[in-house]
Amino acid sequence: MKNTINIAVIGLGNIGSYFCREITKKKKDIYFKTGKKIKLLFVSARNKNKKRSFKFSKKQWLSNPIDITKNPSIDILVELVGGSDGIAKKIVTSALKNKKHVITANKALIAKHGNFLAQLAEKNKVNLEYEASVAAGIPIIRNIKEGLISNKIFKLVGILNGTSNYILSRMETTGKNLNEILSEAKTHGYAESNAKSDLDGTDVASKIKILSSLCFKTLISENNILVNGIENIETKDIINAKKLGYRIKLLGITEIKKKSIFERVHPTLVDANSYIGNINGVFNAAIINSNPVGQSIMQGEGAGPGPTSSGLMSDLYSILRGNIKYPFITAHKMRKKIKIFNHLNYAFSCYLRFEVLDKPGVLSSITRQLAENKISIKRLLQIPDKKKKIASIIIITHNTLEKRIIKCLDKLRKNDSLIKSPTFIRVGDNNDN
Amino acid sequence: MKNTINIAVIGLGNIGSYFCREITKKKKDIYFKTGKKIKLLFVSARNKNKKRSFKFSKKQWLSNPIDITKNPSIDILVELVGGSDGIAKKIVTSALKNKKHVITANKALIAKHGNFLAQLAEKNKVNLEYEASVAAGIPIIRNIKEGLISNKIFKLVGILNGTSNYILSRMETTGKNLNEILSEAKTHGYAESNAKSDLDGTDVASKIKILSSLCFKTLISENNILVNGIENIETKDIINAKKLGYRIKLLGITEIKKKSIFERVHPTLVDANSYIGNINGVFNAAIINSNPVGQSIMQGEGAGPGPTSSGLMSDLYSILRGNIKYPFITAHKMRKKIKIFNHLNYAFSCYLRFEVLDKPGVLSSITRQLAENKISIKRLLQIPDKKKKIASIIIITHNTLEKRIIKCLDKLRKNDSLIKSPTFIRVGDNNDN
Repeated sequence: MKNTINIAVIGLGNIGSYFCREITKKKKDIYFKTGKKIKLLFVSARNKNKKRSFKFSKKQWLSNPIDITKNPSIDILVELVGGSDGIAKKIVTSALKNKKHVITANKALIAKHGNFLAQLAEKNKVNLEYEASVAAGIPIIRNIKEGLISNKIFKLVGILNGTSNYILSRMETTGKNLNEILSEAKTHGYAESNAKSDLDGTDVASKIKILSSLCFKTLISENNILVNGIENIETKDIINAKKLGYRIKLLGITEIKKKSIFERVHPTLVDANSYIGNINGVFNAAIINSNPVGQSIMQGEGAGPGPTSSGLMSDLYSILRGNIKYPFITAHKMRKKIKIFNHLNYAFSCYLRFEVLDKPGVLSSITRQLAENKISIKRLLQIPDKKKKIASIIIITHNTLEKRIIKCLDKLRKNDSLIKSPTFIRVGDNNDN
Repeated sequence: MKNTINIAVIGLGNIGSYFCREITKKKKDIYFKTGKKIKLLFVSARNKNKKRSFKFSKKQWLSNPIDITKNPSIDILVELVGGSDGIAKKIVTSALKNKKHVITANKALIAKHGNFLAQLAEKNKVNLEYEASVAAGIPIIRNIKEGLISNKIFKLVGILNGTSNYILSRMETTGKNLNEILSEAKTHGYAESNAKSDLDGTDVASKIKILSSLCFKTLISENNILVNGIENIETKDIINAKKLGYRIKLLGITEIKKKSIFERVHPTLVDANSYIGNINGVFNAAIINSNPVGQSIMQGEGAGPGPTSSGLMSDLYSILRGNIKYPFITAHKMRKKIKIFNHLNYAFSCYLRFEVLDKPGVLSSITRQLAENKISIKRLLQIPDKKKKIASIIIITHNTLEKRIIKCLDKLRKNDSLIKSPTFIRVGDNNDN
């Protein structure tokens, strides 16, 4: 490797600008740690004249990012445009083909095209680094790829979206509803103006797909996985959960079950005293179970320019150290497809909330329906609202196959005494805590 | 780097045997991840004929470990003998001089001779890897050196000794005293037959010295640091702490205070609801505060052949990937000495327990002495034992300079009403949780 390494950064939003400032400021430090001089040769973004915290010179600006990926002087290309397709994909593909190392924070891109891009990086003998794509400031990808590399991982459970975790935490502490907290979060910069993917679970799903393929050395799954978001969580569910000793968290889980892979994202009732039940606010966390190391935990800030830049910098150092390796631990051709576990066959305890008319026979019609579907009840709470002549019935079931729950709820939706569709949230097992 | 890498392992205790089994078993896996074939060429230990879980062939055994370090076929030497000096130091020194990469789990060696050995490794352009020397299964060294490499670290707080943490946890749950739990721990394999360095804090002190120098890019300090162990913790202190909302943990702490380094190991009263207050049993954990990443946490099993071997394997992979780097992040000549913070000038809250004769005027003589030393009281508990006509007086002070506490306790030791020397345990501040 040459002694001076030329870098191009494409995408100069909050994160891009922060990262450019960091590498400019920390040039000397990088030299002392790696013996390499770095130079930010080119930058590019959609809009040249936008106000930014990073000032570039005229010479540094190139308007066509594809030209940059072909420029013979460039050694490392940093893609911070975002989006699974479009320009981001074009830039990264072209850079790898032109034998440039690539650093990206783009989880959507890696989750969708990671298999193809990894193959391209391997073929061209360059690094494809994406530490900042999952849990920003927690070096979880590096940890799985390097620190825990010799371990056989069975399961990973994570809180991988700071925005949704902040919202759930604030709903509990303030008693306000989701929309109120969401606008509060936007004001404080804890949620982006378009928080759809944070709320509906798709952001976590991308991260889980990436982490799965690292944990189990498999190809990134192209299948649809079980994804439920937090959009329908009501403050009363959070309060009920608390009464029963639980807290509601949006978990991303991937595990090996009966030699199949079971990836899922859903709100989960977790023990309020458990470790994962106490990751509040904008923090991210992951619990990994593996052999021989046992349980390991990582926790840190999962978003924001600072933490994201920390992840990008660790990728840069990795490249500068000559730490060439397969993007997904093993060579592309050794990564296997693995059967998908059918979530309908998963047995778990669940939380059900029925809003009903407060009249005789309603409870019995619900419990009869549960019994007919072989769903047994662990705990039951009835909270009447005498004025309105309605009641909430909250049930925690014993472990039950998901398909039974679905069948049962389909039947119950037709029950005239229900004044709205039942709420159903999965309860985590001990391994999820 | 050649395609077949020859390894020698010296020291075949529980950990050495486990590691040899792992690399033999995982040869294929290593090849798939790195493209390198490994061969366990030689092993050596004090006693050839001891019963071991790993079976070596006649050809693999060499009785003189120094010969192995000079053998031109060997690429990587793994030192698992232990001890800061003697044969371990000789082997590692000779191996580095002969341009062999070295992997060691020997914290005492690194804490004492790490500066010298790092210089030697750099000079000979080989790796000196020691992930397993601190917190075994938690890849904390790799995390600081690689994952968090661009961050400015201010403070690290850790539970870094599984044996002492197990003992303190069991004392709380069983109410038994330290010696009873210690022998129980030995029976269950959670404590070695000689647990002195686990109990007196010196094991944690070695780890803190290593971590400090990584966190702050300084030379490993050769000074004596503040080290108190758990030998004198009584079950009644644990019970009192619980009454007051605390739990007692043996913490290793290193931080930058007034541009000086403040390294210390001591039992600490931490908030029972805090994260660190809930690391129980044989787990290790570390909280790192840095910029820009903020707070990051790692947790995992801190001892045993499996977790230790996981650390050793991550070192092996690092070498096989050609991840050559400075052993302490920056080049030896860039690592600076840093001033030592005088712990006598540290202000903290503290827990004091006085065992006194239950007669008039005793409490007032104690509180007067505290007042004279400008130590103010935050909480006070008096627990009389009417039968014996004695009492325990427990005091939590406001923040107080350590030198005042020492002076005050010196005076109080002369108080005739005290039936034994006072107990004094530091209380952690919010940043320690």
